[in-house]
Amino acid sequence: MVTTNPNTLATFDLKSYLTQRAAEIEAALDSSLPVVYPEQIYESMRYSLMAGGKRLRPILCLATCEMLGAPSSLAMPTACALEMVHTMSLIHDDLPAMDNDDYRRGKLTNHKVYGEDVAVLAGDALLTYAFEYIATQTPQSPSQVQSKAPEKGPEKGSEKALEKGPITAADKSTAQPQQVLKVIASLARAVGAAGLVGGQIVDLDSEGKAIDENTLTYIHMHKTAALLEVSVTSAAILAGADQTVIDRLTRYAQRIGLAFQIVDDILDITSTAETLGKSVGKDIAVQKATYPRLWGLEASQRKAQQLVDEAIAQLDIFDQQAQPLVAIAQYITARKY
Amino acid sequence: MVTTNPNTLATFDLKSYLTQRAAEIEAALDSSLPVVYPEQIYESMRYSLMAGGKRLRPILCLATCEMLGAPSSLAMPTACALEMVHTMSLIHDDLPAMDNDDYRRGKLTNHKVYGEDVAVLAGDALLTYAFEYIATQTPQSPSQVQSKAPEKGPEKGSEKALEKGPITAADKSTAQPQQVLKVIASLARAVGAAGLVGGQIVDLDSEGKAIDENTLTYIHMHKTAALLEVSVTSAAILAGADQTVIDRLTRYAQRIGLAFQIVDDILDITSTAETLGKSVGKDIAVQKATYPRLWGLEASQRKAQQLVDEAIAQLDIFDQQAQPLVAIAQYITARKY
Repeated sequence: MVTTNPNTLATFDLKSYLTQRAAEIEAALDSSLPVVYPEQIYESMRYSLMAGGKRLRPILCLATCEMLGAPSSLAMPTACALEMVHTMSLIHDDLPAMDNDDYRRGKLTNHKVYGEDVAVLAGDALLTYAFEYIATQTPQSPSQVQSKAPEKGPEKGSEKALEKGPITAADKSTAQPQQVLKVIASLARAVGAAGLVGGQIVDLDSEGKAIDENTLTYIHMHKTAALLEVSVTSAAILAGADQTVIDRLTRYAQRIGLAFQIVDDILDITSTAETLGKSVGKDIAVQKATYPRLWGLEASQRKAQQLVDEAIAQLDIFDQQAQPLVAIAQYITARKY
Repeated sequence: MVTTNPNTLATFDLKSYLTQRAAEIEAALDSSLPVVYPEQIYESMRYSLMAGGKRLRPILCLATCEMLGAPSSLAMPTACALEMVHTMSLIHDDLPAMDNDDYRRGKLTNHKVYGEDVAVLAGDALLTYAFEYIATQTPQSPSQVQSKAPEKGPEKGSEKALEKGPITAADKSTAQPQQVLKVIASLARAVGAAGLVGGQIVDLDSEGKAIDENTLTYIHMHKTAALLEVSVTSAAILAGADQTVIDRLTRYAQRIGLAFQIVDDILDITSTAETLGKSVGKDIAVQKATYPRLWGLEASQRKAQQLVDEAIAQLDIFDQQAQPLVAIAQYITARKY
């Protein structure tokens, strides 16, 4: 086992990495959803899907896939689906009956542009399209034979064949149907009543109440961490990782998910609407339970840093390959918006 | 090819069949969704999922599965998922921002009981759970080997083995993962922007407008027929039917779907709130486009009957096995609620 070298990490250019990855994802999302009749629903779906944002979930998915030696193309449909699901949750969350937000990422929210009825339907359509997209677009093995197909012998004079190590991207460029099914089941669980929706329900129920730390942690683990968790574990499933690896990635994601939400709550207090691109101070206005409210700002910041350190420790077995995931974890506490 | 004998069909007891099937489906739905923390979301989901209704979609799914020689257990998770998706569409459709209905199946609508925020989330959770349920609960082959596994020789003295014909339910009791993926993709397409949601969008856009027959047919084919279509084709996919059979079933479902919606529109005019269990006369009140409005009541009734006849004609190759699907088609034009 090789421990991660902090000096090497320092040289990793996260900004360039995120920019390049986000550009790939924008292109993939753009081509995932052409506008056809009836145009209004596709335009509404695209309005929110293409509204920018950090693309953190798809980036985590692609980065994990590559860390495990599989090409990012294997996970790209799942990465797009993660953003579709995330976008759905934002559209429905912004509705007047929910958080009643007029702005999101510096733009009018979906229902302010298209009306509440279309916004509800656009969310439904994005959610269901996410599953369709994974099922139909994930590169799948032409044969569904479970036992590994005998590997082809090295091609004559092929440099690529000579370079072939025990695990290469070429071996992992497609998934078996049962792996794709597992990804679908994991994503569905992460977004449903046992995941994101469950977190939102407890969150709504907690407004204006004095809730304990356990309840607050439940909210964050489900409302935020569940989708981040499936962002990395879905890639691991597709790349054929074993359970030890999936468990490490689960712990990594849970910790950055919780840290992410704590930082979100902190930014709601310390940031400005201009920087954040959405309304601020709302949590306090509606007496929403947050970590800063429970512990104060400084203790919340310390806790976020501790979680990020723990998350990074889960990645030590991956050495250099973990650079993007390590840097993303560090970025979470450092971010200003 | 043996043509269906009308005399035999007349003896089929549809009422008993529907009652028995509905009871099976109620039990399966009941056990599909236990109430756990956070209870409110599961109670809200169950409130609408267990609110009765005809269970037409799951019944079509199970009937098709058995018609094609597979046991209904193979399609039961998909049948439940169809009802989850249908229930989601009703919950969201009833929202104030959509049709704004207070009653559904004689009970208060979901948002009247749980609030709009919970109703939006309950719909989201049911939609995503439908996909999880198919992916995890469909009986799947232990081996993912595509080529047919060599059949075991008959067990000594086993009557079951001796009874075995060329196609038996036992051969079709499980599905391959790629068949399950195909069902998920078909269901997702049927409910999304290319299906149900697309139909709802055009429907909403048409209120108070003079629309032509093509637009009206688009609405019905997507808002109603798409989900009925996938109810039968999903079962056909699981049972391993060939494309000819799937095409026939598609035509069957499209015709009964359209007929079903025409009859729905007729009942909105001719029935009473007591019989129907929901508000009546609403279509006229909001100047909604309907077939009766376009053609008049009598011509609409004739068209519905013609569609049902065409639907039944698609089933002639299945002889006696088609009895339930034939009777269901006939029931659509005869129903009073």
